[in-house]
Amino acid sequence: MDIASANFENVGPFTRAWEWLKALAVKLWAMAVEFANKMKKLGQDDPRRIVHSLKVGVAITLVSLFYYVRQLFDRFGEDGIWAVLTVVLVFEFSVGATLGKGLNRMLATLSAGALAVGVDQVATLFDGTGQPIVLGILAFIISATVTFMRFFPALKARYDYGLMIFILTFCLVSVSSYQDDEVLEMAYERLYTIIICSFIAIIVCICVCPVWIGETLQNQIANNLEKLGNFLEGFGREYFRLSEEGHSTDDKSFLHGYKSVLSFEDKEETMANLARWELWHYRFGFRHPWNRYLKVGTLTRQCAYKLEDLKRYLKCFEIQATPTEFRKEIQVPCIQICSESGKALKELASAIKKMRRSTTVDGHIAKSKIAAEKLNSMLSNSLWENANLREIIPTAAVGLVLIDIVPCTEKIVVSFKELASRARFERMDDRVSPNNDV
Amino acid sequence: MDIASANFENVGPFTRAWEWLKALAVKLWAMAVEFANKMKKLGQDDPRRIVHSLKVGVAITLVSLFYYVRQLFDRFGEDGIWAVLTVVLVFEFSVGATLGKGLNRMLATLSAGALAVGVDQVATLFDGTGQPIVLGILAFIISATVTFMRFFPALKARYDYGLMIFILTFCLVSVSSYQDDEVLEMAYERLYTIIICSFIAIIVCICVCPVWIGETLQNQIANNLEKLGNFLEGFGREYFRLSEEGHSTDDKSFLHGYKSVLSFEDKEETMANLARWELWHYRFGFRHPWNRYLKVGTLTRQCAYKLEDLKRYLKCFEIQATPTEFRKEIQVPCIQICSESGKALKELASAIKKMRRSTTVDGHIAKSKIAAEKLNSMLSNSLWENANLREIIPTAAVGLVLIDIVPCTEKIVVSFKELASRARFERMDDRVSPNNDV
Repeated sequence: MDIASANFENVGPFTRAWEWLKALAVKLWAMAVEFANKMKKLGQDDPRRIVHSLKVGVAITLVSLFYYVRQLFDRFGEDGIWAVLTVVLVFEFSVGATLGKGLNRMLATLSAGALAVGVDQVATLFDGTGQPIVLGILAFIISATVTFMRFFPALKARYDYGLMIFILTFCLVSVSSYQDDEVLEMAYERLYTIIICSFIAIIVCICVCPVWIGETLQNQIANNLEKLGNFLEGFGREYFRLSEEGHSTDDKSFLHGYKSVLSFEDKEETMANLARWELWHYRFGFRHPWNRYLKVGTLTRQCAYKLEDLKRYLKCFEIQATPTEFRKEIQVPCIQICSESGKALKELASAIKKMRRSTTVDGHIAKSKIAAEKLNSMLSNSLWENANLREIIPTAAVGLVLIDIVPCTEKIVVSFKELASRARFERMDDRVSPNNDV
Repeated sequence: MDIASANFENVGPFTRAWEWLKALAVKLWAMAVEFANKMKKLGQDDPRRIVHSLKVGVAITLVSLFYYVRQLFDRFGEDGIWAVLTVVLVFEFSVGATLGKGLNRMLATLSAGALAVGVDQVATLFDGTGQPIVLGILAFIISATVTFMRFFPALKARYDYGLMIFILTFCLVSVSSYQDDEVLEMAYERLYTIIICSFIAIIVCICVCPVWIGETLQNQIANNLEKLGNFLEGFGREYFRLSEEGHSTDDKSFLHGYKSVLSFEDKEETMANLARWELWHYRFGFRHPWNRYLKVGTLTRQCAYKLEDLKRYLKCFEIQATPTEFRKEIQVPCIQICSESGKALKELASAIKKMRRSTTVDGHIAKSKIAAEKLNSMLSNSLWENANLREIIPTAAVGLVLIDIVPCTEKIVVSFKELASRARFERMDDRVSPNNDV
């Protein structure tokens, strides 16, 4: 705070207080402006966030209105609070997450309500102090068992919220049943309020600018492939330009794109789990093979690690230390591997985005394989006997990594083909390519 | 299902049905046994899971009993349901998560309740249809704004749950206020029920076998360092044994340990966020520098990527293709780098676990630096002029990666020292080392 550091020594107490207040106001205004700017940036980065906030507002207002006109539909009883609860808790950013939470909540409420009513019937067989003891023991057993089940990875991935709501509803209904005897009615009211309000949340989420997590995942996988493709194409040019001209292009954004690929694993799995709930999406439909996307994603990540190796060798002084004749010799196949593998990856990216098969990708892979063989045989002969080993190694190591990248790209192509056949991507074979410039 | 595939063609319908039922029973029994085994394994992997489940059971039973004896403390009113809700929602696996959720819930309820009561006073200025419209507009504005604030990374990390509860409580109190006029009393009741029940959850969580997320994070960081240390020590032996004997040791578990390090990033950040809530832990106390642990963790991960490079070169046929004299020459400094860096990392791991400074680590780093310099000068002279480049490169590349690992280890040591001074780790200088065998 620079408020305290201002020099007010030779003025009266009133002026001093006034100056201090002015400084404070300026400070507060600056903080408010900074906060507003951050808020603006957050909205500009992804405008869907603003839309989401408005959607939540609309859903909550709808439910509130529902409650205000309760006099008209007087069936909601005291459960208006549950309505608000359900909308706030169920409404998530993506359709998949909202559907998952909504369905989990409905199913868990239904099954736990039914179980609690059954338990209540058993407990009425006991009288006086016996009843709370039986109810307490049952609540303990069921909550402990279901809590433990939440640790199962398969259940945690898709039904974690449902299991929590199961414990909640069971305890709620069975605890209340001891006090008032209208258990059945209460369970029934709770169930239909939750169903109606989950549907309000789901419908607002789907109808007003929906964010489909499946689409987001598909785009992300495609964008990751594109980033790797851009890196490879750019790397080939950059490396041998550096070696000749000693300086490089200004725009190096392509060199950093791959880094975001490395940290996506957890998020991709979460997204695939949520995408499975989006059964009604017009492009994907039932049983879309989300697992195959994950496989493409994992192989993409393995390839990105190799690009990280490559990038380590992009140091100007090391490259220029390499003997020129050696560099010139391997330049052609190296650039060819980079550009062909890069084209293959970018072709896959556009094919995934358009959900069609690719006809040109096999050609790129074949060309890059030929270049890799050529490079391999060049590195194996001992033309450079008089060269300093330390000088040759960095460039030769780049060659070795590039040779490694070819089978890596091929694996991605194979897993893409599996995805394309499972997901019934459109075939392109029978169309006449518009690029046939004769 | 192999039930259908059994051959029942030449028997009567009764026998067939009987056989089918028997097969089904066997199948069901096998599934039940498999499920029980999975459950058992889950418990054996981490017995704290079983303890956690029992703790949740105890907390819920306690709250239920509280509600059963409501006749004695008849101040809970109709809010018994909130009690159960709070315990189920607040109770998490670790102390940090439970404290975070509990404090978030209490603070959010308090502030949102106060705001809602204020808004309610404003709304009473309007009559008839004006009141629900004003309430609706305010609910819309507040829920949309707070939902948008949940996208702020800084708020999302620690206060996401609180912001959700804020919307919830605000809407709940303001919606209910339109129907019954006891808003103040309702807000007050809700607040103290939530406070009491959050405390029940927090106390059970802390007093019965607590799982401190801070301890877990500390152990994880230390274990990751130890895994890298084991890998390095093992790699040095393994690589040159492979080259001489052509086969390797049976126990290769040390070679795979580092892999888990690569995928820990997201979890470490979440853990550090939760650990900040554990203000009362006797070992860490207030303002423990959790960020410093994250930095050590990030550098550990960078080092693990280099180990992945190393592992790629551990292919028998490639190593044996290297000319023997070259391999023999660089063997000594390579093994020295591996063993000294490995020792340094393992020393750091044990220092972090015991929360003390290390006196020996600088020695290991100095020795590994000397070895790296020796290796560097060996690779730079051109002794191996007649060697086949393709044959030499893999082993020389291993040398280059090892030279890279030394500054990487040094960075980890520097960040450990920063951590040690910030967290006031115990000094070891003034003690007489028991290992001084003269």
